Order: sequence, then C-alpha cells, then structure tokens
Amino acid sequence: MVKKLITEIQKKNAPIVVGLDPNLSMIPQNLMDEAVAANDNKLEAAAEAFFNFNKKIVDATYDLVPAVKPQIAMYEQLGIPGLVAYKKTVDYCHEKGLVVIGDVKRGDIGSTSESYARAHLGNIEVLGEKFAPFDEDFATVNPYLGTDGIKPFVDVCASCDKGIFVLVKTSNPSSGEFQDQILESTGKPLYEYVGEMVEKWGAEVSEGDYTNVGAVVGATYPEMGKRLRELMPHTFILVPGYGAQGGTGADLKYFFDKNGLGAIVNSSRGIIAAYKNDKYSDRFSAENFGDASRPAVIDMLEDIRENALP
Amino acid sequence: MVKKLITEIQKKNAPIVVGLDPNLSMIPQNLMDEAVAANDNKLEAAAEAFFNFNKKIVDATYDLVPAVKPQIAMYEQLGIPGLVAYKKTVDYCHEKGLVVIGDVKRGDIGSTSESYARAHLGNIEVLGEKFAPFDEDFATVNPYLGTDGIKPFVDVCASCDKGIFVLVKTSNPSSGEFQDQILESTGKPLYEYVGEMVEKWGAEVSEGDYTNVGAVVGATYPEMGKRLRELMPHTFILVPGYGAQGGTGADLKYFFDKNGLGAIVNSSRGIIAAYKNDKYSDRFSAENFGDASRPAVIDMLEDIRENALP
Repeated sequence: MVKKLITEIQKKNAPIVVGLDPNLSMIPQNLMDEAVAANDNKLEAAAEAFFNFNKKIVDATYDLVPAVKPQIAMYEQLGIPGLVAYKKTVDYCHEKGLVVIGDVKRGDIGSTSESYARAHLGNIEVLGEKFAPFDEDFATVNPYLGTDGIKPFVDVCASCDKGIFVLVKTSNPSSGEFQDQILESTGKPLYEYVGEMVEKWGAEVSEGDYTNVGAVVGATYPEMGKRLRELMPHTFILVPGYGAQGGTGADLKYFFDKNGLGAIVNSSRGIIAAYKNDKYSDRFSAENFGDASRPAVIDMLEDIRENALP
Repeated sequence: MVKKLITEIQKKNAPIVVGLDPNLSMIPQNLMDEAVAANDNKLEAAAEAFFNFNKKIVDATYDLVPAVKPQIAMYEQLGIPGLVAYKKTVDYCHEKGLVVIGDVKRGDIGSTSESYARAHLGNIEVLGEKFAPFDEDFATVNPYLGTDGIKPFVDVCASCDKGIFVLVKTSNPSSGEFQDQILESTGKPLYEYVGEMVEKWGAEVSEGDYTNVGAVVGATYPEMGKRLRELMPHTFILVPGYGAQGGTGADLKYFFDKNGLGAIVNSSRGIIAAYKNDKYSDRFSAENFGDASRPAVIDMLEDIRENALP
C-alpha cells in the first residue's frame, strides 16, 4: 500500500493529506439545518451533516491531494450514526480515488489487536462470506503494548496489502512526558527506540524503498524528525501538527528524503475550517466552506514545495 | 464511580469482572443458526449472535458479579452491526445493575481525546439536546501521549461521575519491551513512572480511599503488581490476565489492599467459553453455554477469596 501512496503523491506532486476531522462548531448553519430537516433524530442529523461536510471538502480538493485522514474520534462522539458517517466517508473517498488513512490509534494485546486489524484493514469471514468492516488503507496504531500488539496489524498489512503508521513522537505539547524519557539501556529517548522497532517491524512488509509500517512524528518537533528520518530509512512518516498546531513548511525539511519522498504532512482544521480563517473568509462565506478549502490546500502545497522539499 | 464499583464489589463479595469478549469461534451453532434465520445479512446475524451470547452469560452470572468488561475490538471487527451489539450489551448490563467497564483503550492528543471521552463516558449536545453515545461507566485509556491526552478523560470523570483505567503494565508477553525500560531520570522502569502519573492524575477525582483514575496491571506480572500497589495507594487496579492468560489467584495477593479492596480481576475466555473447558464440558453442552459460565465464576471467586484476599 505504501507503493500506491507514493505513486499518488508523485502523480499529484503533493505530499499532503487532508484531515477529515469535523466537529459540531465547524458545521455551517445551512448544512445543519438541512440535515435536521431530513432526520427525526438530532444525533443522526449531526452525523449526516458531518458526511455532507466531508463530501464538499473532498469534492473541492480530491484532484490536488493523494490522501485523506479521517479521525475516527470525531465520528465516535456521535455514537453509531457517527460511525456510519465515518464509513460513508471512507467509501466516498475511495470512490474519488483517494488513499484513506484511518486515524484510529488502536492497539491492544495480540488476540485483540487481531480483531482491530480485521476491523480496519482486513476482513472477517462469517459462514463463508467475507466482509471488510471499515476498509481503510492505512490505520494509526499505538505501540505501548509492544511487538505482540503490533504483529497482528503487520500480518494483515502483508495479507491484504495495507499499511499502518505507529505512534513514535506525537505532536502534542506533553508528548515528551513518556516519549522523551532517556532509557538506561540505550542512552537514547524512548521514541528513538520505538522508531528502531518500527523499522524492524516493517522489514517483512517492504515495498520498494519503504515498508508498510510507517511512523507518526509531529511537525512540532523538527529536530526529532530529523533524527528519526536518519534512524528509520525505510519508514514512511505521517506528520501531524502542521498549521493549526504550529508546524510550518520550514519545520518539515528533514522529514523528507533526498528525493522529496518519505513523508506525508497532515492538515485538518487549517483546510477543512479554512472558511473561518481571516485569510480566506473575505472570499468565502460559510455557505461555500468547501470552496475555501481549495486555496488552503494550494497555499499549504506551495509552502511545502518551497520550504520543505529538496 | 469508583465508590459505586467498590459498593457493588462489597455487596457481592466479589472483586471480579466478566470480560464480554465474544469471538465467532465461541458462538454455539444453534445461536448462530437462529441469528442467520432472523437476518438477511450474515454480518448482522453474527452481531446479533454476539449480543444473544452475552445476554445468556449475563443472565447466568449477574447476581454473582459487580461488573462486566466488554472488549470493543471484538465488536468493531463486525463493523457497524458489531458496534450496535456493543451498545446493546452496555445497555443490557446496566439494566441488570452491573457496572460497565468499556475496554476501548482509546487515547489521542487533547482535543481528540475530548471526543473519545464524550463518546464513551460523557455526552454531546446537539442543538440543545444531550446524547450519551456509548455510556460506559469506566473506559480503559492508553497513556503514550502523556497528560494532555489523559486530562480530557479526567475532566469528564469529574463532570459525569465516571472513571478510567490507564494502561500501566499490560498482561501480554511483550509488554516489557517499552513498559519495563529503565528510565535514566528515575532509575526505575517506565511503568512505575506511568503509575506515579496515574496517582497524580487521580488526585482531582478522588472518592474516598480511591480515585476515579485507575490503572491496568496484568495478573501475569505479580511482582510488578506488588510494587505498583505500594506506589499507587489511591489507585484502583483493573487486573487482566487471570485464567486463560496464565494468572492464578495466588498471583493476585499483592494487588489488593489490607481490606481486600483496591483491585478487580477480569476473566474473559475462562468464563464466557467455560462450556468448552474440560472442567465443565461434561456437565454443559454448547446449548447451555450460559449455564456453564456460572460455575466458572463460582470457581474463580473461590480461588480469589482463598488465595488472593487477606
């Protein structure tokens, strides 16, 4: 799957991913009104509004970007109707030819991770019939439980040509609390050790220069990104934290390899809520919020092409 | 919520929780046949069979135990119908007066953890109407992202009287890979540092002797359980790994405080698939699998009362 991701990045010359993380405060009034008129239940209305919101964003940007990253928590907060909207979003993005990175941050002990891997990347056979429940192309995975929590995901990557991104150094302010702790055994921080393990886990699902086991490394920690790029030469990096969280194009320089590959940068709010940003709000109102996301993508691409790529 | 959990444990003299983790291989043929006859879609049939399976287990054991712990991964592998069965299971267990620990192992950066906390423990307001999407009483949470990933859960614990169990030392064989690493800053393993943070996070949601921020510590690591019991005097411990994973009653002695409180022990397969165990299979067939779970609970209780409690 990483090969496909790289091909799509090259085709569009765009190492970026749009984070489809809608929240109630982002949904324009008219979209919500329409959904409320069409549904008896307000929770179902909100979920429908999330999907219709995503659809407009995707319609306005899919020719510019290779991938999207829906954050499942935003949908899960709307319960079952929200998860239906999540699945509809995954399917719609596939129809538009996009690679879908499910930001699900799952992870458990072996037999349970197997179930998560089946849910998001693989399939389950019921009485001879196969179902692919959520069917994302990549999923994000938490490493705290160690190899036997990761291995079932790697196995599904191998059998179904899918990929994962393992949390290595996250973009949030307190990510260092545990991740930056220096280990006595190596004299280096925990996140570097996790990065080394990611590189190892990937060895059996290699596809060309990179493997199907990627890493999440926040744009907000550029020096650590530089170190991890060296330490994980075959690991594709998913980079959150650009834009609203503070990361800039210049911060991303070292996340890419010498060919300008090896990383894909996510922006969520900066793109999907662009219509609320002063930079675009004079040209776009809440009613054409989708259109506002297009110049936001173009501006982000320009920043990354000029300041981050070799 | 920890106060309610303790009251229920005392009422039933049973510091144990039944793990409702059905898998297709556990569902008796007759139950599956009935569900297939009632549903056009096989995935929906499997989900209905999961719920009906849980119902029989709960009906046979709810008077003996204070709590259940459905593992959401098992339901997520059946997609949307599976998550509907998860929610129905939560609701049914509440009807039976049980405390529900959602084993969801969620965790993300601040704003996203907020959504997960709303989804599982809190509520979301849509146009003036409040919905509690999954409405478990406790949820398990992954600490890898640090305080700002945990804080939103703690806030919801405070506002909605709920609780969490943070992964500290998990029961799986490779849990030590990262969790046991000795930190240069403290000279002690990472899991102890996480345990100390759990004790701190809990301070603002204290309820009597314990707080609403508990810890997950595997029965498979009794020595570490002993150390963590000392290190986290106000932290209630959820103990997986008993039974099928190898933990015994004697291993659990040090997880409890001097009053026999402070811990609750989970068993999943050992109880819900008891009908397949040689110990019970002569008395119970697949058709009365639910009844087999009752002596399994009684035997577990006896083991813990005799060998683990003071």
